[in-house]
Amino acid sequence: MQEIFRYIDNHEERYLRELKDFIQFPSVSKHSQRKKATLECAQWLVSHFREMGLDSQLIETSGHPIVRAERKGKSSRRLIIYGHYDVQPEEPLDLWETPPFEATLKEGFIHARGATDDKGQLFCHIKGVESLLKTEGELPCDVLFLIEGEEECGGSGLKDYIRKEKDNLKGEALVISDGNMYGDSTPALCYGLRGIISMELIIKGPRTDLHSGSFGGNVPNPAMVLAKILAQCVDDNGKVLIPGYYDKVKPTAPWELENFRKLAFDETAFIQQTGIKAPHGEEGFSSLERVWNRPTFEINGIYGGYAGEGGKTIIPSYAGAKITLRLVPDQDAQEICLALEGFIKSLIPDYVTYELKRPSGSNPVYIDVHHPALQAGKTALREGFGEEPVYIREGGSIPVVKVIWEELQLPIILMGLGTDRDGAHAPNEKFSLSNFMNGIKASASLLKQFK
Amino acid sequence: MQEIFRYIDNHEERYLRELKDFIQFPSVSKHSQRKKATLECAQWLVSHFREMGLDSQLIETSGHPIVRAERKGKSSRRLIIYGHYDVQPEEPLDLWETPPFEATLKEGFIHARGATDDKGQLFCHIKGVESLLKTEGELPCDVLFLIEGEEECGGSGLKDYIRKEKDNLKGEALVISDGNMYGDSTPALCYGLRGIISMELIIKGPRTDLHSGSFGGNVPNPAMVLAKILAQCVDDNGKVLIPGYYDKVKPTAPWELENFRKLAFDETAFIQQTGIKAPHGEEGFSSLERVWNRPTFEINGIYGGYAGEGGKTIIPSYAGAKITLRLVPDQDAQEICLALEGFIKSLIPDYVTYELKRPSGSNPVYIDVHHPALQAGKTALREGFGEEPVYIREGGSIPVVKVIWEELQLPIILMGLGTDRDGAHAPNEKFSLSNFMNGIKASASLLKQFK
Repeated sequence: MQEIFRYIDNHEERYLRELKDFIQFPSVSKHSQRKKATLECAQWLVSHFREMGLDSQLIETSGHPIVRAERKGKSSRRLIIYGHYDVQPEEPLDLWETPPFEATLKEGFIHARGATDDKGQLFCHIKGVESLLKTEGELPCDVLFLIEGEEECGGSGLKDYIRKEKDNLKGEALVISDGNMYGDSTPALCYGLRGIISMELIIKGPRTDLHSGSFGGNVPNPAMVLAKILAQCVDDNGKVLIPGYYDKVKPTAPWELENFRKLAFDETAFIQQTGIKAPHGEEGFSSLERVWNRPTFEINGIYGGYAGEGGKTIIPSYAGAKITLRLVPDQDAQEICLALEGFIKSLIPDYVTYELKRPSGSNPVYIDVHHPALQAGKTALREGFGEEPVYIREGGSIPVVKVIWEELQLPIILMGLGTDRDGAHAPNEKFSLSNFMNGIKASASLLKQFK
Repeated sequence: MQEIFRYIDNHEERYLRELKDFIQFPSVSKHSQRKKATLECAQWLVSHFREMGLDSQLIETSGHPIVRAERKGKSSRRLIIYGHYDVQPEEPLDLWETPPFEATLKEGFIHARGATDDKGQLFCHIKGVESLLKTEGELPCDVLFLIEGEEECGGSGLKDYIRKEKDNLKGEALVISDGNMYGDSTPALCYGLRGIISMELIIKGPRTDLHSGSFGGNVPNPAMVLAKILAQCVDDNGKVLIPGYYDKVKPTAPWELENFRKLAFDETAFIQQTGIKAPHGEEGFSSLERVWNRPTFEINGIYGGYAGEGGKTIIPSYAGAKITLRLVPDQDAQEICLALEGFIKSLIPDYVTYELKRPSGSNPVYIDVHHPALQAGKTALREGFGEEPVYIREGGSIPVVKVIWEELQLPIILMGLGTDRDGAHAPNEKFSLSNFMNGIKASASLLKQFK
């Protein structure tokens, strides 16, 4: 890899300039007034791929188009590379220290909207491919880029495309760099994502808000009924009380426990980062187990009655809660949906009516770290970053991963190149220049593993 | 009273016309663009009182002025008459079947904003005084009207005036007609109002909303912490769990229990009116006891996290609840405030921070029905309506009553002339023409009791 890495180092300036070109498009997929800019960004990518020597085209969807680019390699093994060219809105503008759509180099970081999420990380793979082509004249394996423009707006374009084209989307593995390393600088491979179930419950009392003086005492208070139901869902030690909830939860494997211990979760930093008074969760489990390998029950929102300034002496007509559960292997989303619905219904007293938006969700993802594709990712990270990568899991769910996992049944190499401090979705988003360069190297190295 | 009542009957048309003049002012105290109209309404009242032969003047306040009107009578006993000339906003306009500021007579009802609350009810007393003056040439007792323009906007003008002038506001009793009879048509004297305590509790977790996937399981969820606290405040049988809460609660007296039984609360009508599935409250007490003579704990509003359409996978940064308690004799508001604050604090787990807007409130009001002033009110209602009035209590609190009660220490004759169905504060507010006429008679009769 020496020659390739030298090539990469020698072209830092051009690669940065090109990333700057990519970043300049305000491809905010959520904002309809940015539709043109989002399209121009996709078109720029297509041209860029063609200049690099790849076949590339726009694929129309119900929303923003997909950029598809591919090239045959020496081996017929195919690596699929996922990314997204759309970005979060840049607001609030007044908090930005540099123009959000100008990549500004400052103290070793590229500052811009999309710098880490996902233009910078995606560009590592694009330049990884180019560096190989330029130094070796051909690619070690077949490469297919699938780059969507709807990741930040929840569009279904790519998912629909994958479902429709799954027979033509075979490959050996799929790599995604749209996440973080471990801590500030440790390269990491993510091998597990939690599943998710969403639900909303609305307890209904009187037809309209009632005067709490004239009626209070003889009318059920929907907010109190709701509070009592929610309070019965999790005990004081953080254990979820849905019957059978933990039946299929796999205990954390000994190697993982050892791994978690080595990862040395920094509680002080966590408290500083989040601003909480103290961590709180299921008793008897470490912080990493709690967010990576234990299921949860979270209230995402609660509402009812008067929430404005001052007070209003009413009994609310209704009160509701939005709830999500995070699932871990081997919980089954459909089974848990049924158990949740039955449990919640059993807690609703007979003197109120209710509306339950039926729970629905998706299963957790767990990839065996011994799978050759993951081992390839590990080697690539080691070579690119010059440091041994760690294995991590992620508490969240990545919808597209779930679709790829279920439809394409490909091993997924989750190789986040950003860090927690990059401020994805926030003002002053940034991406470390050294992670950019090492990411390009890791990408080139990854392709080499599929020769 | 025969001659006076005949006079009243003979002048129905003029009285109605004058009420129409009073109603035409859109004296919406809450809306600054109606300030002029509100002032004009007060000025109209002053002129009207002067034409009737009373001394009258506007009294400036920090908000809308007070209308004061008085006249000496044969006896030096003084009856103070409270009322308010301001009204609720008329919105939503499209739901009105007649113009809100035109008194429209339809099916025996006067339809207009302020018809029952409080222009119509107040006007009964104004015309009661006039009818006596016109038939007898003088009043049986001294009369003082105190009519505020800030009842519907929570202004403090009258309260400040009462506190400042209390030495000059002596009298034998104060009468208020700004409420309802019992059921659809039974004249009623109200002898008890519940007290009130207000509080707001905000549980604080992370500095900002956090991703419920990446952080969920290791961070306290403020909405869940809040739900658990609230759930511990009232048991499943509607009993409030604040220590000592019921210590001073007087059991309902045997005569009251008998009275409540006779009043024959109509549960079916209550369910229809409120739209609830079933009444719910403190076990072992009747509906009337629950709303009139039992203290409560109500959540007026609950909020936290995401409440918009769809979902958002977050752990809310904070969650709060607005709470009011209703107090009954002999609970002491200050004592209960302390007990409530201590209790709530004891329920807050040590892994969250919180903000507690300190509880504050006011005592219940209870007037002995044997007091001569109340007996005078009873006679007046009997004579005016030709029907035996009943004794009732009210679950709500009337702030001005509390101030009068505490500052002036006058017995208060709460003689509501409206009904539940009049739609105070709602579109198509109305006031029964027969209640208007009987109310004038009752007012004249009341003055006679103080001869």
